[in-house]
Amino acid sequence: MRHFISIKDLSKEEVEFLVKRALEFKQNSQAYKGKLKDKTIISIFFENSTRTRTSFEIAAKRMGASFINIDHNQSSIKKGETDYDTIINLSAMMPDAFIVRHYHSGYPYFLSRFTDIPIINAGDGTANHPSQAILDAVTMFETKGKLEGLKVCIIGDITNSRVAKSHLWMSKLFNWELSFYGPRTMLPDERWLDNIKIEKNLKDALSDKDFVMLLRIQLERESGNNIPSLKEYAKFFGINSLNVPDSYIMHPGPVNRNVELASEILDNFNKSLITKQVENGVFARMAIYEFCLV
Amino acid sequence: MRHFISIKDLSKEEVEFLVKRALEFKQNSQAYKGKLKDKTIISIFFENSTRTRTSFEIAAKRMGASFINIDHNQSSIKKGETDYDTIINLSAMMPDAFIVRHYHSGYPYFLSRFTDIPIINAGDGTANHPSQAILDAVTMFETKGKLEGLKVCIIGDITNSRVAKSHLWMSKLFNWELSFYGPRTMLPDERWLDNIKIEKNLKDALSDKDFVMLLRIQLERESGNNIPSLKEYAKFFGINSLNVPDSYIMHPGPVNRNVELASEILDNFNKSLITKQVENGVFARMAIYEFCLV
Amino acid sequence: MRHFISIKDLSKEEVEFLVKRALEFKQNSQAYKGKLKDKTIISIFFENSTRTRTSFEIAAKRMGASFINIDHNQSSIKKGETDYDTIINLSAMMPDAFIVRHYHSGYPYFLSRFTDIPIINAGDGTANHPSQAILDAVTMFETKGKLEGLKVCIIGDITNSRVAKSHLWMSKLFNWELSFYGPRTMLPDERWLDNIKIEKNLKDALSDKDFVMLLRIQLERESGNNIPSLKEYAKFFGINSLNVPDSYIMHPGPVNRNVELASEILDNFNKSLITKQVENGVFARMAIYEFCLV
Repeated sequence: MRHFISIKDLSKEEVEFLVKRALEFKQNSQAYKGKLKDKTIISIFFENSTRTRTSFEIAAKRMGASFINIDHNQSSIKKGETDYDTIINLSAMMPDAFIVRHYHSGYPYFLSRFTDIPIINAGDGTANHPSQAILDAVTMFETKGKLEGLKVCIIGDITNSRVAKSHLWMSKLFNWELSFYGPRTMLPDERWLDNIKIEKNLKDALSDKDFVMLLRIQLERESGNNIPSLKEYAKFFGINSLNVPDSYIMHPGPVNRNVELASEILDNFNKSLITKQVENGVFARMAIYEFCLV
Repeated sequence: MRHFISIKDLSKEEVEFLVKRALEFKQNSQAYKGKLKDKTIISIFFENSTRTRTSFEIAAKRMGASFINIDHNQSSIKKGETDYDTIINLSAMMPDAFIVRHYHSGYPYFLSRFTDIPIINAGDGTANHPSQAILDAVTMFETKGKLEGLKVCIIGDITNSRVAKSHLWMSKLFNWELSFYGPRTMLPDERWLDNIKIEKNLKDALSDKDFVMLLRIQLERESGNNIPSLKEYAKFFGINSLNVPDSYIMHPGPVNRNVELASEILDNFNKSLITKQVENGVFARMAIYEFCLV
Repeated sequence: MRHFISIKDLSKEEVEFLVKRALEFKQNSQAYKGKLKDKTIISIFFENSTRTRTSFEIAAKRMGASFINIDHNQSSIKKGETDYDTIINLSAMMPDAFIVRHYHSGYPYFLSRFTDIPIINAGDGTANHPSQAILDAVTMFETKGKLEGLKVCIIGDITNSRVAKSHLWMSKLFNWELSFYGPRTMLPDERWLDNIKIEKNLKDALSDKDFVMLLRIQLERESGNNIPSLKEYAKFFGINSLNVPDSYIMHPGPVNRNVELASEILDNFNKSLITKQVENGVFARMAIYEFCLV
């Protein structure tokens, strides 16, 4: 039994194990069927997400678990209970794992100090989204046959992105040549960075990469304040038929069509891995369940 | 594997098969138990409906499937994702079927062009509600022992009713004497009609029919604009103890008490099939699952 | 098959049976596994509650049942259907039980007159919360080895508390020395009482008891109108390190920290049974399912 909160907590071997296990599950449904029989998993999302929640739910049910969704809008929060008390009390019902998404960075770490029931982080604030990083690694390994020494550029609102930060830990484990690009208002301070390069312009950002990863402009979060308009973002930082790179394109989804990525590229580009990322997400989460619960 | 979008797409033999299969399931639970083992069904409702969603969910679970509800209010739509992208991305998670209700007429057809995962239409705009038509047919066949040549009058907001339109296709398959009645503002243009009669008055509408089907005044949709008041509708188009017909009464529910139907008739009339329709709905949906997935 | 609506309807032997069965289930998971195989349970909550709903859901799934949640916010109510019609129509789908929470006192009794499907009351208005009373009894029996002749004081908004009223019936079955304490505006009229004592002051309320049960100030319900402020309530009726009693402390949850109970007591007091109540809640509900459905 263990928590799954940040890529930072994992060794290179553990990430490799998860990636390879996910690909085994993808090849062979017998490898996961019944693995979570008689287990009960509670998802509690303090922020909405269809995609991530559904991916965790499908993965759990395919492995034979019961899955209980708690929508924070209906929860006891409305009765004045703290998020902490909600989780601690649900712990007393002895589920076999919690899937937690929370808007506060670090909240799953905080919770993990008070319960032995595995906490699987489905995203916390702007800090971590480790299951996304694993599914991305699965997709990269499936595409390139390796994780070591990849050349990866991430474009978008780096500062507010838990995906970018999760890959920062990945890049250390696997010696990636990682670079960031985006509007200056969305890029981290130089002090924050270590071996990561800030690209000078979009042309450089898109040149000589294995994977270009686009981030969502999160209209519902802070991104909106950091750019003049979506049109301007699309013009200077978006990918379209005129600048489409030679590398593979990834995006954690959901894509804002014609903002990060032109519609024609999203629908037709043969080096887009975006659908494959979603597909692999289910198997990545199966591997995570096995890692934490079995 | 096939989609289930409109009665229009079905042959007479296919409808008969579905109807008879539903009645077999009603007789014998062994006939459906375990049929959907290891299947995962996603329901995604862009319009609310307790009844229809629950009926699909009970049917799926009784057959052994996992069922995942996606409430559009929580979904990625709020993040600016199109309904199309939501479904295409969920497709990448490889569920075995989608149950889709959408407020736009034709939307399930549109979606079905982009995915091989069976799309089961749980109602689209004012166009189709094929599972309702099948469950109505099950109820009619159970009551009269035949579907051929039935005399059916549908009363209410015909123009905005996907139920009425689904039965229009039914009437062609089984040579029904189908007629419509309702306020003039709720009746289709003559050009729209083929062999369907518009009744001259309520007395005629209720005379010499096998089944009188009442439609809901949909307060939450457009109906409200087309009638002066609910009281007036009840007075001129509602069924009550003074005008109750000799035929069987059906209603897709939920009934507005004392609007389409007087409370005393709803609760006591021995030729009301309304509860039986709900009951048969579960078995009709089982038959549809088998038809599309197995 | 039977309803489960109020402790008032149960004999002493039935309560003892439920309590002992819950503790058996706690000891031995083989005693409940598969007991509800092929059963479908529908929960319909007309008032929100994470804790109670999740407890019922975990209990049902651990016993092998399918569990369908209906959130009244999405339900047909919005389409103008009465709560009565919603439940009667769901009955036609033949679930094996309903879990109902309703804001009207007595509503589950009313419903039970119209359906043979077991109705399990998850709380109605200010009248009954029988599954809470059973789980409390489980916790008391586990702690003291008996239910007979316990000394229990309940503190808080007695008038509006369905928990207090459920224990009133308990006290009659097991000859408890039951007393109440709280602000005068929250205490019942003397006429209402029988053998129950009203305590004169907090010191008396906390003296010589087996169990002190604190009730939630229900900010979302009426309590707010009956006290000048939460601070004043905490000062005159709350438990903190200065007045903590020698007896066990119980609370149906969720606790308003530093209102009914000081945070340091909630988190550290070794005679607090609050977490144990939540834990036992799952087993109590299993026993109730078995009692009503098997």
